Parts: sequence; structure tokens; C-alpha cells
Amino acid sequence: MEEKNILIFGHKNPDTDSICSSLVMEKFDKNLGFSVEAVRLGEVNKETQYVLNYLNLSAPRLIHEVNEGQPVVLVDHNEFTQSANGIEKATIETVIDHHRIANFQTTEPLYYRAEPVGCTATILYKKFKELNMEIEKKEAVLMLSAIISDTLLFKSPTCTIEDKTACENLAHIANIDIDTYGLEMLKAGTDLSDFTPEELINLDSKEFINGDFKFQVAQVNTACIEDVLQNKVDIENAMTNFMTQNGSNLFILLITDILNSNSQSIVLGDTTIFEKAFSKPVENNLAFLEGVVSRKKQVAPIILNALT
Amino acid sequence: MEEKNILIFGHKNPDTDSICSSLVMEKFDKNLGFSVEAVRLGEVNKETQYVLNYLNLSAPRLIHEVNEGQPVVLVDHNEFTQSANGIEKATIETVIDHHRIANFQTTEPLYYRAEPVGCTATILYKKFKELNMEIEKKEAVLMLSAIISDTLLFKSPTCTIEDKTACENLAHIANIDIDTYGLEMLKAGTDLSDFTPEELINLDSKEFINGDFKFQVAQVNTACIEDVLQNKVDIENAMTNFMTQNGSNLFILLITDILNSNSQSIVLGDTTIFEKAFSKPVENNLAFLEGVVSRKKQVAPIILNALT
Repeated sequence: MEEKNILIFGHKNPDTDSICSSLVMEKFDKNLGFSVEAVRLGEVNKETQYVLNYLNLSAPRLIHEVNEGQPVVLVDHNEFTQSANGIEKATIETVIDHHRIANFQTTEPLYYRAEPVGCTATILYKKFKELNMEIEKKEAVLMLSAIISDTLLFKSPTCTIEDKTACENLAHIANIDIDTYGLEMLKAGTDLSDFTPEELINLDSKEFINGDFKFQVAQVNTACIEDVLQNKVDIENAMTNFMTQNGSNLFILLITDILNSNSQSIVLGDTTIFEKAFSKPVENNLAFLEGVVSRKKQVAPIILNALT
Repeated sequence: MEEKNILIFGHKNPDTDSICSSLVMEKFDKNLGFSVEAVRLGEVNKETQYVLNYLNLSAPRLIHEVNEGQPVVLVDHNEFTQSANGIEKATIETVIDHHRIANFQTTEPLYYRAEPVGCTATILYKKFKELNMEIEKKEAVLMLSAIISDTLLFKSPTCTIEDKTACENLAHIANIDIDTYGLEMLKAGTDLSDFTPEELINLDSKEFINGDFKFQVAQVNTACIEDVLQNKVDIENAMTNFMTQNGSNLFILLITDILNSNSQSIVLGDTTIFEKAFSKPVENNLAFLEGVVSRKKQVAPIILNALT
């Protein structure tokens, strides 16, 4: 019987970290002699496509589910609600992540490495360093792109000194100017022109569960919040439909201004929880969140704490 | 305001790994400049006391619960059911463990390192090595004792080449003969003479939960199974009382022969799950498990799989 390839993937609605870290982890594991394949759980976004184009790389193969007993490596996520369909029955061998741990469990011991840094790729960078494994230019570009994306060019409060140092060292290997490349890459991701409202709210969307309360936090990056709000009514309709279909209690869409590091948010559903969490009224379904750019650090835990 | 000490502890009913790894992690974190204190969640068993006596060390301070917001480091466990009372409201900063992940969640990102090795101390040994941090004789003895305990002198199927190598290197630092020291230490743990049946079943006991099904697996080491079975009726009564008080569906007591690496088990409650899991009848509340010495690898996952 042929031995099963280990599948490596990031979360649903993959962002640049999920795609790039899957590819880097594939390289890392192959260097160690493992039979692995990076795959993805959804469409590649425009920001990530910019990175793949820069490197003349194809996107990993798209999968929708994993079979029972399939050995897998999770990067950039751990919550089953954000992972492949069937993940409960897969054999999770390794997790490399930088998020809270929740809605996750295994029956067997595993390799799990999480650190409270800004980006999964920063942990991968440390893994290469710890084994004195050479980082080639391709992997350097993948990792630095992921770091720039997750930290919004070091502006996010999730960014740590380790992320910045890793990115700078990787830029040296890749011979890339971080600011020039990074701004081009981020801007590529803000082109929302050919997305329907349904697509827009699903570009980078995550579900969180606390007891019986289910909430969704989606995020889009933009250089101009007003441009996005021109379709506010259509976006709200898409959000309402999503909530009905998914049984969500609350939906927050963060429209993040990457130049000024603020977010306008559209809030639908149980807005009282949002108002309690942020001590701020939701008016006309809107609440402006000054200085907020990080779902992980500045939104999800605030809502989760308000629920408990 | 004085900054809070970070508390470091292993699981309830602490075994040698839980106590020794707490003390080693305390040293590791202090070397890095953190303000930490190793504590424990229960009585020190005789095996561990042998190690502490050997090093002329006091046991860590006993605590029963942690306060809301208390920063903590968990070693050798992650499941809240095995941790301090109040753990849900503590701030878990770090976990170092070698068990499956379950009944665990945080609202914030954290540092989590798990590896599927035989002992937490083996991971700590790697952490010292990765930072080129010197290992002193005291920590060497603590870590090698934990490895000998968890792997039953390398005989457990949980033992990996990394555990054995770490133990050998640590024995070199400590100038200890592993076999001589190890057998003395293990034998110290098999002196069950002054325990009541209630104490016996609580010496090293863990609760597992799958959906609505709650089961307990306790383990005692012995050089002579028959000696332990002389009190079989009293032990069974203690197990039955525990199950009633705790609402457990199943209780398995593993009486492990450390010389021959087998376990006699007393099984009470929903024995059909046990019989399904091991394809073996329970007769007179007993089932002999040939070659079984590891709760983590050879018992808990077998029951968990039979439940799903």
C-alpha cells in the first residue's frame, strides 16, 4: 500500500500567511525527508496572488475536505470550525500556529507549536534557524510576504520584535526592499472592484463560537473606506443572508484602512454584545474603531470576553 | 502594584514528571529573567519523594486553585479537568506538554509546545539545548528522573529515541548510573503499604471526557500484582464510591508490573465499552492487559476511539 502523503494547509478563506506558510512548511518537511503536499481550502486572494506571481509559482491544489485517518499538518489555524471539512476524523500530526487554541482536540499526542507572534511564518523562520537549515530565496519571499500581510507592514499590535527581525533578515536573503514590495503587495489586496458583496464578505472571514453564541468576523483591507461603503446596503444584505444560513448571532465586517490603521465596521445581529464589548454605540449599523486593525487581538478576544 | 509571579504547575495527582518538570521550568524561566514559582496541585508521591530526597530539595508549595487573571504555565498537562480549580479564568501564558490536546481553550494567543515524546522533561531538555543554556546537576537529575518515571526505564511504548538520548546525556551530566538509580526510584514508588484503598486509587488518576461519557483511569506501579490484589474488594468499593460521587461512567485501575511490563486492570462501570475497546472480556471485574504499561498510549485513546 502506498503511504499517504501528509497534507499541509492553512485555514478556510486562506490569507497570505495560510498559503505562504503551507508552501514553506512543505519545503521544510521535504528537507527532512517527509512525504508532504501543501494544499489550500479556498480561493487565493489578490494579495497572495501578487506574491505567487512575483515568484512565478502556482497556487497549491484546492481541496474541500479530508478523509478519515488522513495525516495532516495545520498551519495558521487550529479551530476545527476554520479547518477542512472532516478534520475531526483526520490524524493531526502537527500544528504550527499563532492564534488562541479553541474548538480543537485530538485523541493522540501530537506536535504542536504555537507562539504569540504576529505571523505563522515567523515561527517557521525560527524552525529553519533552529535546525541551521538554509533558507532559499523563494521561501524567504514567501515568509516575508506573510509577515508583511499579517502585521500590515509592522503596524498591527500583533506585530512583535521577532516578526520584524525575521522579516528584515528574510528581506536581506531575498534582496527585497520591504516598504516598496510590501506596499505594492498590500495594495494588490485592496482591489475589491470585481467582487460581489457575497464574495467580499467571504474573502477573509472567520467564525468564532462561545457556548451557544456563534459570531463571524470578516475583514477587508482598503486604501479608501468610503469606496467600500458605496455598496453598504448590498453588503448588509449579503451579511444578513449569511447569518440566516449559518445561524450566526453576530456578524462584524472590518473595513480596514491600511494607510491610516483604522477600521470602519459594519455590525449586524446581536449588536448589544458588540456595544458592550467596545463601549461604543452601533449607529446605522456602523461603528468606527480607531486604531483597530487586528481581528485576532483587537476584536475577537474583546467579543469573547464580553460573552463570558 | 507588585507584578504577579507566574505560577508553574503540572497536573492534579502529580507524578514525577509533573513535579520535576515544574521545578526545571522554574529554573529555565528564571534564567531568562522571568518572575516565576513552581507549585503543585497535590501530594508528592513516594517515587517523586525519592528524587527530592536524593537532591535534598523541598517539594514545591501546594496550591488548590488559581485566581482570575493569574498568569500560569502548565507543564505535563493541558486538559482543564486535570488542572487547577479556576484554570478557566487564569491567563495561560505557556504550555509544555506531551499529551493529546482536549478540554483546553484560551481567548488569547499563547506559547504552546507539545511533542509526541515520552516525557515533558525531554522537551525541556531540548529547550535548554536550543538556547545553549547550561544544564546544572540538579536539573539534570530532575529531568532524568522524570524520563525514567514516564517511560518506566525506556520500556513504555511512549518512549522515543529522543527520550532515551536526553536521559543518557543527562545521566552523564549528573554522573548517575541510569539502571541502578532508576530501579531504586521506581521501586520507591511501588511501596503502597500505607495507603488506604481511597488513597491508592487517587495516587495517579486522570479523568477523560468524551461527549457525555466520563471515565477515570488510575494507575499504580508494583513489583508484585498479587500483593495489590489482596485488597481487591476494598479497592473496588473505593472505586465504586468514587464513580458515584464523580458521576463517572467507567473506572479502570491499571496495576502495572514494572518488572515484566504488563498490567492487571480492575474495571468497573460500563465494562461493555472496555470489552469493545480491548476485544477482551472483563471477568470478576478483572482484565489482564499483556504488554500494557501506558495509560496515555495504550488505554485512554483505545477507550476514546471505542466511544466514537
